Amino acid sequence: MTEALAPGSIIGILGGGQLGRMLSVAAARLGYLCHIFDPSPDPPAAHVAAKLTTAAWEDETALARFAADVDVITFEFENIPTATLDLLEPLRPIRPGRQALAVSQDRLHEKEFLRDLGLMTAPFRAVEGRDDLSAALGEIGAPAILKTRRMGYDGKGQARLESAQDLDMGLAAMAGAPAILEGFVTFSHEVSVIAARGLTGEIAAFDPGENLHKSGILRETRVPARLTSSQRSDAVLIAAKILNSLDYVGVLGVELFVTQAGLIVNEIAPRVHNSGHWTQNGCAIDQFEQHIRAITGLPLGDGTRHSDVVMENLIGEDLERLPELLRASNVAVHLYGKPEARPGRKMGHVNRIHS
Amino acid sequence: MTEALAPGSIIGILGGGQLGRMLSVAAARLGYLCHIFDPSPDPPAAHVAAKLTTAAWEDETALARFAADVDVITFEFENIPTATLDLLEPLRPIRPGRQALAVSQDRLHEKEFLRDLGLMTAPFRAVEGRDDLSAALGEIGAPAILKTRRMGYDGKGQARLESAQDLDMGLAAMAGAPAILEGFVTFSHEVSVIAARGLTGEIAAFDPGENLHKSGILRETRVPARLTSSQRSDAVLIAAKILNSLDYVGVLGVELFVTQAGLIVNEIAPRVHNSGHWTQNGCAIDQFEQHIRAITGLPLGDGTRHSDVVMENLIGEDLERLPELLRASNVAVHLYGKPEARPGRKMGHVNRIHS
Repeated sequence: MTEALAPGSIIGILGGGQLGRMLSVAAARLGYLCHIFDPSPDPPAAHVAAKLTTAAWEDETALARFAADVDVITFEFENIPTATLDLLEPLRPIRPGRQALAVSQDRLHEKEFLRDLGLMTAPFRAVEGRDDLSAALGEIGAPAILKTRRMGYDGKGQARLESAQDLDMGLAAMAGAPAILEGFVTFSHEVSVIAARGLTGEIAAFDPGENLHKSGILRETRVPARLTSSQRSDAVLIAAKILNSLDYVGVLGVELFVTQAGLIVNEIAPRVHNSGHWTQNGCAIDQFEQHIRAITGLPLGDGTRHSDVVMENLIGEDLERLPELLRASNVAVHLYGKPEARPGRKMGHVNRIHS
Repeated sequence: MTEALAPGSIIGILGGGQLGRMLSVAAARLGYLCHIFDPSPDPPAAHVAAKLTTAAWEDETALARFAADVDVITFEFENIPTATLDLLEPLRPIRPGRQALAVSQDRLHEKEFLRDLGLMTAPFRAVEGRDDLSAALGEIGAPAILKTRRMGYDGKGQARLESAQDLDMGLAAMAGAPAILEGFVTFSHEVSVIAARGLTGEIAAFDPGENLHKSGILRETRVPARLTSSQRSDAVLIAAKILNSLDYVGVLGVELFVTQAGLIVNEIAPRVHNSGHWTQNGCAIDQFEQHIRAITGLPLGDGTRHSDVVMENLIGEDLERLPELLRASNVAVHLYGKPEARPGRKMGHVNRIHS
């Protein structure tokens, strides 16, 4: 415990959305205080955090003051501007570190990184313009998905190309941004592993969950996932390989396609992950606490699953089902405190416990 | 749901200790914000609450401003000064209401109230002075416990009288305050029921827990408690009787002695209760959320126990065991964010899950 932050220390969290909010609650449970940095004035995390800085990612004075107030910095989303990180990095430890962010901020780098680790990914090609795209489509074939290399999430910044005729439509959707063309993988289902690596290098993983997406947004995660025991251990070994090679500290989410050829890595997220929300009601230690333990130097917790759980996201108008969900048996409701239920906006989630 | 407070509404909590802290987290999970009122400058609840007022219970301006900011008021401890309640009551609904507080603020009223409901209590006599005490000791016999009628908790304001010779010692311990002499009850063990009553009168109870005290402070609660099924239903019926007769809204804790003659009510607490902390890791809905649901007019939740739990308080130097507890399997650690581990001070608790 020598290296662990003392109780009462302050954790700085970049981003005040629902992930920052649930991280802040977990940090409090371990005796820490959280300071949220977010450009918007009333972010969900501020409702359950000790301190809030409302300032732009470019506000150097506010960033320096924020860093001076906290003992360690973490983040709830990976697309933090490089200049912000440049400013914060010399002032306070950022966990997980720069390398994990660099890899996951760029879809091409991420795929190359995974391939270089010897892991399977979907076929991919870098696309800088019309000629690249034409060649890439020729090699990978259609249908395929064209994605901006940076800043995409929940299905945004993507175009599905059904044939070579969609080439111009795809290029237009990228609006000149560097892109990556990804081939389709035939898979039976998608699972994800939420794994953590501590400050001293120890690794712990939660049971993999099985994910159901709709329109590019996660709808549901079921635990346990349909996996053979060797697939289950493969999934954890893949996550461990990624964590170790990035010298990672914190929780990482790894999305995997289950195929006859084995597990194919779809995507990694250098943070707590929507598909790990089930841990709040299925384990003694949830993914949020596991992340806080890792970045503060506490020992990782025992993430053993005590109950089977189905996590369901409440998106936009799903909130209208709240009265019924509040009355249901063995259902834990988690709302994010967002004022407006816009279509596609994650408003909360529920965990159905099947013990 | 017509009567329920809308998401985004503000709950005012009188008292910012660990109970207020855990109430605030539960309220956020349901989309509410909390405003804590506490005389001390950095109360534990403020680390996870949207707003804090630091002011004395006598500060009329601060109280009025607090009331104007919130939609409903609740409290985390029963000894709120009468003048404070007089001021707040006309401004905002206070839940649970005045009657529950009046009963539980005065040990004599509480015992009389329970007796009038037809419930069993320990024998008791009001003690206003030497003559009363002498007569009461004659009727009840020794050993007996002399307690101040008001403001005692965790073994404070009490004196154990082993014989009539302790009469003067006992009187001195009361320092002139009105007191109550309570006889001892022969019981096999103590259990408690955490029950809730909603705004529309519905009642829900968690499984009774079995409590272990040391030096007047709760050390441990085990669930399930050793009870026959008829004792279990008696326990819930007793709680329901109390809730209904007080037209109660919120969570109530009822401590019961298990005796051969039946269940004897030891004490009631008009709030979330230490012996209900196990619900955080044993149920989909914990006692804190149940309280918030009740006072906001949401439907009560399903408090079914999905796992057996042993809750252990971390008191004072117990915190030194933290490194070991953080490493233990199936142990959920809950710290309160208090800066100093003084002897007898509740610093946190752990829930050991036995699923």
